[in-house]
Amino acid sequence: MFTKRHIISTRDFSKEEIDYVLSRAEELEIYARAEEPGDGKGRGRKSDLLKGKILANLFYEPSTRTRFSFETAMKRLGGEVINLSSTEASSVAKGENLADTIRTVSGYCDVIVLRHPHEGASRMAASFSPVPIINAGDGAGQHPTQTLLDLYTIKREGLLDGLRIALIGDLKYGRTVHSLAYALSLYKATLFFVSPEALRMPDEIKSDLKEAGAEVLESTDIKEIIKEANVLYVTRIQKERFPDPAEYRKVAGTYRITTDLIEENEDVIIMHPLPKVDEIDVEVDGTKNARYFKQTFYGVPVRMAILSILLGKEEMG
Amino acid sequence: MFTKRHIISTRDFSKEEIDYVLSRAEELEIYARAEEPGDGKGRGRKSDLLKGKILANLFYEPSTRTRFSFETAMKRLGGEVINLSSTEASSVAKGENLADTIRTVSGYCDVIVLRHPHEGASRMAASFSPVPIINAGDGAGQHPTQTLLDLYTIKREGLLDGLRIALIGDLKYGRTVHSLAYALSLYKATLFFVSPEALRMPDEIKSDLKEAGAEVLESTDIKEIIKEANVLYVTRIQKERFPDPAEYRKVAGTYRITTDLIEENEDVIIMHPLPKVDEIDVEVDGTKNARYFKQTFYGVPVRMAILSILLGKEEMG
Amino acid sequence: MFTKRHIISTRDFSKEEIDYVLSRAEELEIYARAEEPGDGKGRGRKSDLLKGKILANLFYEPSTRTRFSFETAMKRLGGEVINLSSTEASSVAKGENLADTIRTVSGYCDVIVLRHPHEGASRMAASFSPVPIINAGDGAGQHPTQTLLDLYTIKREGLLDGLRIALIGDLKYGRTVHSLAYALSLYKATLFFVSPEALRMPDEIKSDLKEAGAEVLESTDIKEIIKEANVLYVTRIQKERFPDPAEYRKVAGTYRITTDLIEENEDVIIMHPLPKVDEIDVEVDGTKNARYFKQTFYGVPVRMAILSILLGKEEMG
Repeated sequence: MFTKRHIISTRDFSKEEIDYVLSRAEELEIYARAEEPGDGKGRGRKSDLLKGKILANLFYEPSTRTRFSFETAMKRLGGEVINLSSTEASSVAKGENLADTIRTVSGYCDVIVLRHPHEGASRMAASFSPVPIINAGDGAGQHPTQTLLDLYTIKREGLLDGLRIALIGDLKYGRTVHSLAYALSLYKATLFFVSPEALRMPDEIKSDLKEAGAEVLESTDIKEIIKEANVLYVTRIQKERFPDPAEYRKVAGTYRITTDLIEENEDVIIMHPLPKVDEIDVEVDGTKNARYFKQTFYGVPVRMAILSILLGKEEMG
Repeated sequence: MFTKRHIISTRDFSKEEIDYVLSRAEELEIYARAEEPGDGKGRGRKSDLLKGKILANLFYEPSTRTRFSFETAMKRLGGEVINLSSTEASSVAKGENLADTIRTVSGYCDVIVLRHPHEGASRMAASFSPVPIINAGDGAGQHPTQTLLDLYTIKREGLLDGLRIALIGDLKYGRTVHSLAYALSLYKATLFFVSPEALRMPDEIKSDLKEAGAEVLESTDIKEIIKEANVLYVTRIQKERFPDPAEYRKVAGTYRITTDLIEENEDVIIMHPLPKVDEIDVEVDGTKNARYFKQTFYGVPVRMAILSILLGKEEMG
Repeated sequence: MFTKRHIISTRDFSKEEIDYVLSRAEELEIYARAEEPGDGKGRGRKSDLLKGKILANLFYEPSTRTRFSFETAMKRLGGEVINLSSTEASSVAKGENLADTIRTVSGYCDVIVLRHPHEGASRMAASFSPVPIINAGDGAGQHPTQTLLDLYTIKREGLLDGLRIALIGDLKYGRTVHSLAYALSLYKATLFFVSPEALRMPDEIKSDLKEAGAEVLESTDIKEIIKEANVLYVTRIQKERFPDPAEYRKVAGTYRITTDLIEENEDVIIMHPLPKVDEIDVEVDGTKNARYFKQTFYGVPVRMAILSILLGKEEMG
């Protein structure tokens, strides 16, 4: 059923394919966790599903979280990993074009995870690669496994059907929220867009989302929205977007998540793609609402699912 | 019996716990060595004791020797390793606090080895981590697995009981010798402190050691001491400690280990935490007294012991 | 039969030993490839031949292609790898001599792959190492596994006997072509040297090659030679060799491989040690003549062969 050869963009996936990845991730999650000795839950089981397989991490810019997550996913399934760090990558890049690097590295591995500063690099790489390419971020473009792990987190909370989610922060430039909003529209979610005026979700994306099935509402006020939503998806507002530092500070303060704010809806789930800086108060980390560390862990089972599917190992772990 | 969840400081260990680590290291040493084909000693045996487990090396400053040693220990027992290099770490650090990094990385592994420039970083990290933290050096603080491998080296020479050891060099600032001296006091060792006046062992540490059971003697003259000791533990005297370069050169020359000096006690064992620079003459490397390369190798079985205990795999390899 | 303890220079090999490495590489190639699901050719088979063994990559200057290739070779045979990156190496180097680094690292592994900027570093390292050293390039010196993979590529094309090969580009400074030419002389090959006047093969090397059994011809004109050769081995002409940039551009243009040129001999095989920059037109990449990406892949089975021989595992995978 799942016939992708490469994972380039969230938009390449049908809803059925996403559902398949998410259910595969649920099957494999038991192999993703650190063992808790004597917990009787079978955590930390060993798998040899991808034994003998090699994943090459080709990161032309640093993204430790994503690299670690793919590396752990591969190793938890018994596979091996070779890493090209961003400093090495810059020296590889010197003189050699990406096509040659891909044609070379694809001789040394079974699957390539590519992070590249230029939009479209992954699709170009895919056209030269005999082994699957997974896009782990290309410039302002796509990062489809991030979207899949966001969806998985929501699904594991039992909230994917009838979801009412507030996307908060920089909705104009943030690639993460564009991909996620698109994927959620396939699930007919209600999307609240909460951002400063200058960083509103672009109009063409909004019409796109409505057409795809989402209900879309906008606000500049979190307090107004928090009672309506069951999930807050928080993203960073970058200082560089504001010509005036004073304006930035005002805006950043307004969209900051605090324990006071959460009191408005004590069941709300808070997600964040991480790393976070100031946009969530550290006191929130300890609340029952925070889900961002679990979310980053969920990158492991989701990437296990993707890897096992691409490498044609769809039996149980 | 061994109930530590994290390995932060030598002082957290009782003598019984240290003895247990050392005897566990002896059991596992057979798996630590490169095979010598046809040597009939069973060296280079394969172990799957930690199969399916992942160690994350989180090094915020470089320490290749320590990282390699942990990585080899883990892999010799069939486990896997993910590495965050010091250059990557500095970029992770950018903006994200250590607590968030630990909470994220602990979702990707079963045990974290942490090297950090700030004293106390490991204990702080441990408070946020659901998986064990091993302190691999935090600033001027602790580096407990170094102390354990030093003890193991002495034990393997059969010298741990009734030990008479000279600690030589910078005894004022050197964290290695403070931890080691404390651990040796548990074994009622006789400690000779040999250093320039300006780098003497601090008084409060000396009284501490005596109270813990050590006999303590001081000298500024190696020749006077070498006949009394069965082990010389040499550490580097750093140039930066001396305002006057001429003074440094004089001191460094006085505390240098040469083949001439060794003639004073031909059975003496010479140890050094490495890397060494000028404090031991290269001619000493080839003598039967030099034990520092074996000592650095012993880091492997000792770290195998620590890892197997922390991960609850205390059966034989 | 194969009694090398270290792999330092191509010249240490007899023809019989080279033949043995090449035939061993053919046996192991089936384990080198990415699986092509359902291809029925048995590709991507798993091997545990080197299970429990550890290779240390010690790269004092970057060479990602070579490092990846060794790492993949080791992992495809079930072994493990620890990597010292070039940035880490430079910090290790600070203060510590190579002898101490080798004596330390050899305690953590079963075989060391060394890349070092200084000629002779590998032979020196070998004299201090209880485990095998493989020279992966030392300055202007040797890089024997590159030569072996070049020979393997030629053998896999069925061209090793009666070979007529044109070596093109910088024949004066290029270490790759010197080693390769020497090895080919053992096979009584006909060697065409094609280079600008300023970069001709040195006379002493030419007499050496003739003595060893090669037939040697020289030219400055590719077109004249291409019909006579069954292989073109192209190397880069470095700008730095020419005091006058205009002179460089003229020369570089003359020795550039294009599809027009290939029309002169449609069966010719084109090889290149990679990375390539401008010396081969990108249109050539898609022709049936290009063999350089396959050649770089062949580094994997050749290094599998070397590793399995050095580690005493000469049974089948």
